[in-house]
Amino acid sequence: MQHGAEILLSLFAIFVAAQVGAEIAQRLKLPGVVGEIVAGCAIGPSALGLVRPEQIAAGTPLDVLAEIGVVLLLFAVGLETRLDDLKKVGRSALLVGVLGVVVPFALGALWAHGNGFEWTRSLFVAAAFVATSAGITARVLQELGVLTRIEARVILGAAVIDDILAMLLLGVVTSLQGGEGINVKGLLFVLAQAVGFVVVIGWVGSRVMRRRAHWLDRPINPLSPLTIALAICLGLAYLSTEFGLAAIIGAFLAGMIASEVPQREELEHQMQPLLALLTPFFFVVTGAKIDLSVFASADALWMLAIATLIAIVSKLVGGFLGALSLGARSALIVGVGMVPRGEVGVVIASLGLAAGVFSNQTYAVIVAMSLLTSIVTPPVLSLLLARDRDAGTPPPGPAARL
Amino acid sequence: MQHGAEILLSLFAIFVAAQVGAEIAQRLKLPGVVGEIVAGCAIGPSALGLVRPEQIAAGTPLDVLAEIGVVLLLFAVGLETRLDDLKKVGRSALLVGVLGVVVPFALGALWAHGNGFEWTRSLFVAAAFVATSAGITARVLQELGVLTRIEARVILGAAVIDDILAMLLLGVVTSLQGGEGINVKGLLFVLAQAVGFVVVIGWVGSRVMRRRAHWLDRPINPLSPLTIALAICLGLAYLSTEFGLAAIIGAFLAGMIASEVPQREELEHQMQPLLALLTPFFFVVTGAKIDLSVFASADALWMLAIATLIAIVSKLVGGFLGALSLGARSALIVGVGMVPRGEVGVVIASLGLAAGVFSNQTYAVIVAMSLLTSIVTPPVLSLLLARDRDAGTPPPGPAARL
Repeated sequence: MQHGAEILLSLFAIFVAAQVGAEIAQRLKLPGVVGEIVAGCAIGPSALGLVRPEQIAAGTPLDVLAEIGVVLLLFAVGLETRLDDLKKVGRSALLVGVLGVVVPFALGALWAHGNGFEWTRSLFVAAAFVATSAGITARVLQELGVLTRIEARVILGAAVIDDILAMLLLGVVTSLQGGEGINVKGLLFVLAQAVGFVVVIGWVGSRVMRRRAHWLDRPINPLSPLTIALAICLGLAYLSTEFGLAAIIGAFLAGMIASEVPQREELEHQMQPLLALLTPFFFVVTGAKIDLSVFASADALWMLAIATLIAIVSKLVGGFLGALSLGARSALIVGVGMVPRGEVGVVIASLGLAAGVFSNQTYAVIVAMSLLTSIVTPPVLSLLLARDRDAGTPPPGPAARL
Repeated sequence: MQHGAEILLSLFAIFVAAQVGAEIAQRLKLPGVVGEIVAGCAIGPSALGLVRPEQIAAGTPLDVLAEIGVVLLLFAVGLETRLDDLKKVGRSALLVGVLGVVVPFALGALWAHGNGFEWTRSLFVAAAFVATSAGITARVLQELGVLTRIEARVILGAAVIDDILAMLLLGVVTSLQGGEGINVKGLLFVLAQAVGFVVVIGWVGSRVMRRRAHWLDRPINPLSPLTIALAICLGLAYLSTEFGLAAIIGAFLAGMIASEVPQREELEHQMQPLLALLTPFFFVVTGAKIDLSVFASADALWMLAIATLIAIVSKLVGGFLGALSLGARSALIVGVGMVPRGEVGVVIASLGLAAGVFSNQTYAVIVAMSLLTSIVTPPVLSLLLARDRDAGTPPPGPAARL
C-alpha cells in the first residue's frame, strides 16, 4: 500500500519549496519565478538533495509534470495574445527573432573557437547560445500584468521565430558533425514545414474558432469550453514537436486560437488554479537541474562567467537592434526579455554530450549558463517594466502601448 | 528537440478518449466515469494499443498523473464533507466498514480454498476482496450532486475505516505467508498508528483551520488559499502512506479540514479545472489496465464471473447489513457504493504476484474482478440515486437526508 509514497513526498517538497521561494522573492520585490528557481536549486541534488538527479531526468514523472506546467503556462499566455495584435508587431518580431539568433550564434562560435574547439564543433556549441526559452519571460510578463504591452507581443512573436531558426540551426550543425555537409534541400523542407505549421495553425485555427466558438459549449460537461481548449493545447503541443518545434510553441498557438472565443475570460480564469498547481514544477525542476559543483573549480567558474556574459550580451544586442524601431527603452526591454535560454539550451547541451561533441565540463558550463540567464533576467525585466508602471509616465516610443 | 513528444501524444490521447467516453456515457444516461474507464479499456494495451503496458506501470509519468488525479478528487470530495457531519454517521460508518471487510474476507477465503488454495494462501487471495476504493463511488456521488446525503457520508466514513482494516489484514496475511505466525503486538501498534493518524489529523486539523483560516490569505500570492490547501493535500496524502494508509485517505482528510474555512466555496470552485484536467488520467489508466485477453479462455472467464459475483455480493451484503439502521433502501445504496475495489485490489494482486502466492491467471482474474466491480457500480448507484431525485419522493428512512 506504500504505492507512490516517494513520489508524493517529492511532489509535496517541490510544491512547498516553490510557494516559500515565490513568497520570499515577492517580499524582496523580485518576481516570484526567481524564488521558485532558487528554491529548486536549494532542494536539488547539488544542495539539500531532497530531489535526486534520477528523479528529474528526462521522461521521469517530475520532468513530465514540469513539461505539462510550462505547456499550460504558454497556453495561458497565448490566451492573452490575439493573432491580430501579433500581426501588428510582425516586422519587429521577425527582426528581433533573426538578429537574436544571428548575434549569439556568431559570438558563441567565436568564443568556442577561441577556446580551442575546431570550427564544426564550435558551431554546435554556438547553437546552444541561440534558442530563447519563452517560459520564464512569459511568466514575468504575466506576473506584472503587462502581456498586452507591445514589447510583450514582440517578445512572444520573436520567440516563435527564434524557435524555428534554432531548430534549423540545430539541423545544420548536427549534420556538420557527421561531416556529411549540409543538405540544403532537406533544410529548406524542414523550414517550410515549421513555418507552414505555425502559419496554418495560427491562421486557420483562429478563423475556425471565431466562427465555431459555440461548439465549445455543445458537450454535456459544463466545463467543456475548458476541456476542449485543453485537448487542443495538448494536441498542438504534441504536433509542434512532430514539426521539429518546441512543445510550448504549439501550446502558445493553441492559446492564441482559443483567445478568439467569447468564453475567453472564463478560460483565463479557469487556467489560474491549473497554473498554480503545475507551473511550480517547471521552475523548481529547472532550478534543481543546476549543478552547483561546477562552481568548485576556478577554471570552470571563469569559463562560466565568460559564457554567461556572451550569452546575455549577444542576445541583448540582437534583440535591441531588432526592436530599435520601438524606441530605445522598449528595445532594451525586448532585448532583456529574449535573454533566458532555459531548458532549450539544456536540451542542446544534452544532445552535444550524447553525440560526444562536448566534454562534461563544457556540458555543465552550457547548462549552468542557460539557467543563469534564466535567473538573471526576471529581476532586470521586472525592474525595467515596474519603473514605467510605478512612475505612471508614458513609455518612450510613440507606439509603446497598444 | 523531440523532447517528450511521445508522452505528449499519450496525454493527448488519454485526455481526448476520456472526454469522448464521458460524453457518450452521459448521453446514454450513464455516469461519465463509466465512459472514461471504458475509453481507457479501448485505448489500452489489450484493445487499440494507443497506450502501451510499460507506459502505465507503477511509477511511470502516466501512473503518477493518475495518482495525482485521484488524490485531488478525494481532496475535492473532502471539501464537501464536514467533520461534524461525518461524526453524526460515525456508528453506521463503523458498522459498514467492519461488516464490509468481514463478509468479503470470509467469502473470498472460502472461494479460494474451494479452488484448491491452501488456507494461508486463500487468506491472501481473500485480502484482495476486501478494500473498497472510494475514488469511483466518490466521483459518481459528486457527478449526481448528492455528497451531502447521509448515504454518501456513511460510505465515505466507512471507506476510511475500511482502508484501516484492509491495511491490517494485509499485514496479517503477509506475515502468515512467511509462516512466522502473527505478531499481535506489532499489529496492534500498526492499528493504533493508523487510527491515531486519522483521528489526530481530522480533529486537530479541523480545529486549527476553523480558528486560523485567515492564515490562508497571508501570502502575497492571491491564489494562496488554494496553494496552501493543495500543499496540505499533498503533504497529508504522503503522510497517510507513511502510516500504511492509501494516499487518498490523507487527501480526503485534507479536504475535510479545508472545508472548515470560509474560503471553502472559492476552493471548491477552483478545484473544478484541476479535476477536469487530472481525474481523467486516473479513470482512463484504470481502464487501460484491464487485460481483455483474460476473457479468451472459458475457464478463466468462469473463474472471473464467480470471483466478481462473490466480490459484489459479499460487499453488498456487508454494507447493507451495516447500514440497515438507515432503512432498507439507504442501506442498499450504501452497500452498492462500497462495491468498487478499483486500484486497491490491483495493488494487493500485484503484491501476491510478486510474492509468488498467485499464478498469472489468479492475478489477472483478481485485477479484472477489481476493475469489473468499478465498472458495474456507477450505473447501478446512479440509477438508485437518480430515481429518488427524479421522483422527488422523500427517501425511505427518517434520517436519510441531513
